[in-house]
Amino acid sequence: MAENLKRNDGLPPAMTRLVKELARLPGIGEKTASRLAFNLLNRPRDEVIALAESLLEMKERVGLCAECFGLSDAPRCRICDDPEREHDLICVVEGPADLMAIERARTFGGIYHVLHGAIAPLDGIGPDDLKIGELLARLRDADAAVREVIIATNATVEGEATALYLAKVLKPIGVRATRLARGLPAGGDLEYSDSATLSSALSGRREL
Amino acid sequence: MAENLKRNDGLPPAMTRLVKELARLPGIGEKTASRLAFNLLNRPRDEVIALAESLLEMKERVGLCAECFGLSDAPRCRICDDPEREHDLICVVEGPADLMAIERARTFGGIYHVLHGAIAPLDGIGPDDLKIGELLARLRDADAAVREVIIATNATVEGEATALYLAKVLKPIGVRATRLARGLPAGGDLEYSDSATLSSALSGRREL
Repeated sequence: MAENLKRNDGLPPAMTRLVKELARLPGIGEKTASRLAFNLLNRPRDEVIALAESLLEMKERVGLCAECFGLSDAPRCRICDDPEREHDLICVVEGPADLMAIERARTFGGIYHVLHGAIAPLDGIGPDDLKIGELLARLRDADAAVREVIIATNATVEGEATALYLAKVLKPIGVRATRLARGLPAGGDLEYSDSATLSSALSGRREL
Repeated sequence: MAENLKRNDGLPPAMTRLVKELARLPGIGEKTASRLAFNLLNRPRDEVIALAESLLEMKERVGLCAECFGLSDAPRCRICDDPEREHDLICVVEGPADLMAIERARTFGGIYHVLHGAIAPLDGIGPDDLKIGELLARLRDADAAVREVIIATNATVEGEATALYLAKVLKPIGVRATRLARGLPAGGDLEYSDSATLSSALSGRREL
């Protein structure tokens, strides 16, 4: 049949554009993007508008807390503003998603400091690219009188490098620095654990 | 530590709302939605605005072609409007995504008819819920003088049921009805083919 027709993908340009925009999201390829676009097309008008508006609202409102650099829609975030939290206990995390994970665990009553990354020389990310200077400034602030810094960077090469660097720069300030425990995850099975996890679990064993 | 704190997920409400809206998309759970929201937060402002606008534009502009019921941003779609396509050859598909797949193959030069579903008695979908009456009206239109209808519904139980039903209602009209070939897919391996595919490939074998 005819090979010389003016072809497009058979979609109206507005759909093609939406598919293209959706396909820019991480982990979403062209096929998933089409599936999402068709789903959105068949959804009630106000649901699609709600999604579009929440995108714009997020970009409009969400910024960083001036104290902890966590996400906030006000100059200071709700956690830093909460008088019931222990303001002399700071948990240092790599990103806002880590803060969220710790909040979900519902056992931490202190405040946070978000570094916005981890030291990764191969990616060209050094200490100066992170909010480490800002952390030191908070710790030097006499009013804050921080008694402990919990270093809760990831248990990855970059997270460990960052934790070691932090431990080094925190020492002269004289604040107590601790690191999250490493070991078997809850529900973890020895048989399926990797050697690094088992080594951590063994070396970090505790008296019963 | 303190268990009695006022807790949320540690996110500004605008982020929580975006995560909730994203999690309504098919195949996207709470975790993927958070990942997408964080990604969008770190993206340049105009990229996020472009996504939001393309959502609104799609919902604003995209409707159905009055002739083939494919997606269109005009009363008639580009394919129905294209004088170079064979207007006496209609390919019947279940949905707009199927039309798109056939267009991508770049070998079909006719026009389409989109049923918007397939007959599925278990889901309460009968012939009257599909654009079958509209197809018959197109075929009865003397100006169109359609010479062949290619039934390109899916090779599923519902698609086959729809194809059989269409063959039955097309017979009295006297138009030639054909069905897509079934057999081994391109690159298909006999060893890993299911029996239904192999049976189709055998019964549909062609002279070399």
